[in-house]
Amino acid sequence: MALIVQKFGGSSVANATRVMHVAQTITDTYKAGNDVVVVVSAQGDTTDDLIEKANEINPKGSKREMDMLLTAGEQISIALLAMAIEKIGCPVVSLLGWQAGFHTDRAYGAARIESIKPERLQSELDKRKIVIVAGFQGINKADDLTTLGRGGSDTSAVALAAALHADLCQIYTDVTGVYTADPRKVSNAKKLTDITYDEMLELATLGAQVLNNRSVEMAKKYNVEIEVLSSMVKEPGTIVREVAKMEKMLIRGVTKDTDIARISVVGMKDVPGNAFKLFSSLAAKNINIDVILQSVGRDGTKDISFTCARANAEQAQELLEDLFSDEGAVVSSDTTVAKVSIVGAGMQSHSGTASKMFGALYEAGINIGMISTSEITVSVLIPKEDADKAVAAVHRAFFG
Amino acid sequence: MALIVQKFGGSSVANATRVMHVAQTITDTYKAGNDVVVVVSAQGDTTDDLIEKANEINPKGSKREMDMLLTAGEQISIALLAMAIEKIGCPVVSLLGWQAGFHTDRAYGAARIESIKPERLQSELDKRKIVIVAGFQGINKADDLTTLGRGGSDTSAVALAAALHADLCQIYTDVTGVYTADPRKVSNAKKLTDITYDEMLELATLGAQVLNNRSVEMAKKYNVEIEVLSSMVKEPGTIVREVAKMEKMLIRGVTKDTDIARISVVGMKDVPGNAFKLFSSLAAKNINIDVILQSVGRDGTKDISFTCARANAEQAQELLEDLFSDEGAVVSSDTTVAKVSIVGAGMQSHSGTASKMFGALYEAGINIGMISTSEITVSVLIPKEDADKAVAAVHRAFFG
Repeated sequence: MALIVQKFGGSSVANATRVMHVAQTITDTYKAGNDVVVVVSAQGDTTDDLIEKANEINPKGSKREMDMLLTAGEQISIALLAMAIEKIGCPVVSLLGWQAGFHTDRAYGAARIESIKPERLQSELDKRKIVIVAGFQGINKADDLTTLGRGGSDTSAVALAAALHADLCQIYTDVTGVYTADPRKVSNAKKLTDITYDEMLELATLGAQVLNNRSVEMAKKYNVEIEVLSSMVKEPGTIVREVAKMEKMLIRGVTKDTDIARISVVGMKDVPGNAFKLFSSLAAKNINIDVILQSVGRDGTKDISFTCARANAEQAQELLEDLFSDEGAVVSSDTTVAKVSIVGAGMQSHSGTASKMFGALYEAGINIGMISTSEITVSVLIPKEDADKAVAAVHRAFFG
Repeated sequence: MALIVQKFGGSSVANATRVMHVAQTITDTYKAGNDVVVVVSAQGDTTDDLIEKANEINPKGSKREMDMLLTAGEQISIALLAMAIEKIGCPVVSLLGWQAGFHTDRAYGAARIESIKPERLQSELDKRKIVIVAGFQGINKADDLTTLGRGGSDTSAVALAAALHADLCQIYTDVTGVYTADPRKVSNAKKLTDITYDEMLELATLGAQVLNNRSVEMAKKYNVEIEVLSSMVKEPGTIVREVAKMEKMLIRGVTKDTDIARISVVGMKDVPGNAFKLFSSLAAKNINIDVILQSVGRDGTKDISFTCARANAEQAQELLEDLFSDEGAVVSSDTTVAKVSIVGAGMQSHSGTASKMFGALYEAGINIGMISTSEITVSVLIPKEDADKAVAAVHRAFFG
């Protein structure tokens, strides 16, 4: 017998049929002798519908009232899911974020969990009840409702698993696990049995939309074992944990991100502080930058290129033109690029991983723009039109 | 400056336009220098939609989870209304039932308010904020959400007015006040300036659908002054209070109820206990009876007739046939009847009120079946087809 936290997203409970299906998954786990705590999001489009209602009335409503509004969404889904479990005939109780003991700071719309006081929840478990908890929400010191912001329900589930010392935190998604590449694009993509937190973080950052980063960071911090699995297909998923089983794999996955732009500033004065001026001004506007390349230009100048989200490209270009055009620098942006990355803790102890990747791209006839490496990743910038071909070529080189 | 509690029903906040209109009414009251507490119901069909969602999954879900589900409806409306008031630029905060201090018993679906602890609410008022409170809901000793049952938001408003010692509790409805007869049916119906609690209770019981009886009873108990007024038409409504202004009016209104049936048991044995047996068996099935007439029949028998809601007629007839047909009694039911009543505390000190009513009906050629009187009402049973004509005739006799 184990204590298992299960998390289901909004699409998993979008209608009555899906709610009943999820209830079946939960009660199967319960009937196998486990204690089960379930974290659930708002149904399907509920959150978007509520935001639209608010915008019709006041697009600039306070975040406090927005949180009051949005937390109603999970309240509806926990009650419906509890009723579905009652129908199957298992003992169940639904709890709102505050009833489950989620105490947060005061940052409405993006609150951080400060503590979880699970006494009530534990007492329900002690009665052998299935406990359904509203994800994404908590309560602050003023006794007001707060939401945890994007990906909040994943974070709720992992935090709860940590607080309850759960044996496993199952995150049910629309994919059957974490793959070596996007299985819709790469036909022989392989599902990973397990993966480390750091690898998962890199994969998420580099474009794999499986788990929210904040929840993986929290899982790493509290050593919560996560299983990523499908809410529709009944098969084992991918386990995320600190010490992954040795699989003799150099890398764990190949990902792409096509939603980026390359910004280049050519001909800046090569004086101290210019790079700082550039990146601090971007940071002040909350523009996150990724791959950076600096090279010496002609006649005592230097060139800096970097990538950022495509949505920020125009703003970044204007900002840098204001800063550097006086000294003769030319700023350009290019949104026809993509980033392809390999991720894997295995490459730390192996040389030649990067060159194997570059060789695969060369053989596929793909030109590499910029290169960036970390301990467990290698990323290259290539033409966007070649992205799928590049992922396939690199995947073939490593996974055959 | 006064402290005013305002209550708006679901249709008053059914869409963005109406929410903005209600926000304007509230802020006008606030800007006139008053402290304002607002109780609001769930938007339009929200509650019915949520019930339908639940029925799709489990028509026999527990009441505890049903209350968890339904209380989300008011949570949505308080947040939206608060945002509308923010748009107008007045300070505002929305509070759920439990945040406003509504403590109830454990009867999910039909909870009774045990106490109101308005410290949080009072502290928001002290900051000169408009406070929007979710009607219909509270919290029980287990820290679980409860609903107050039908008419709950009216009750929330009156209870809050009592707890805060408010100067006035305004109940906004789709009518402009309490009339001497239904203004859609009787062209010269007059709006009452004021009315006593007892008169209001009788009017409500006798078919006028303006105020929920439970809230009037509570208002009477705690001496809360209520104003019934329109959420759409800006004009003074009708004040409900203990000592009504002397208006030299014998009666306050004429009402009809066409949703009734007359049940007759003819030829019961005239032995002690038969009447008790009859009415206790109806009470055991939760069939409320109204006008009762008992007369001596032939040969040591007696006849009992009474009225009940039309929906209960069939069940009542079957029940009584089982009980009394053995002793030769005949049970019949008649659903072609209507009850017309006059209500007014003034008639206590005037003789001739009943005969004036009977005279008006006689002149209109309407036959009276049964008669029932209380201190402040006279009711007659007449053919249903004559109901509107009867109301008009009686109204003319008393109001010209």
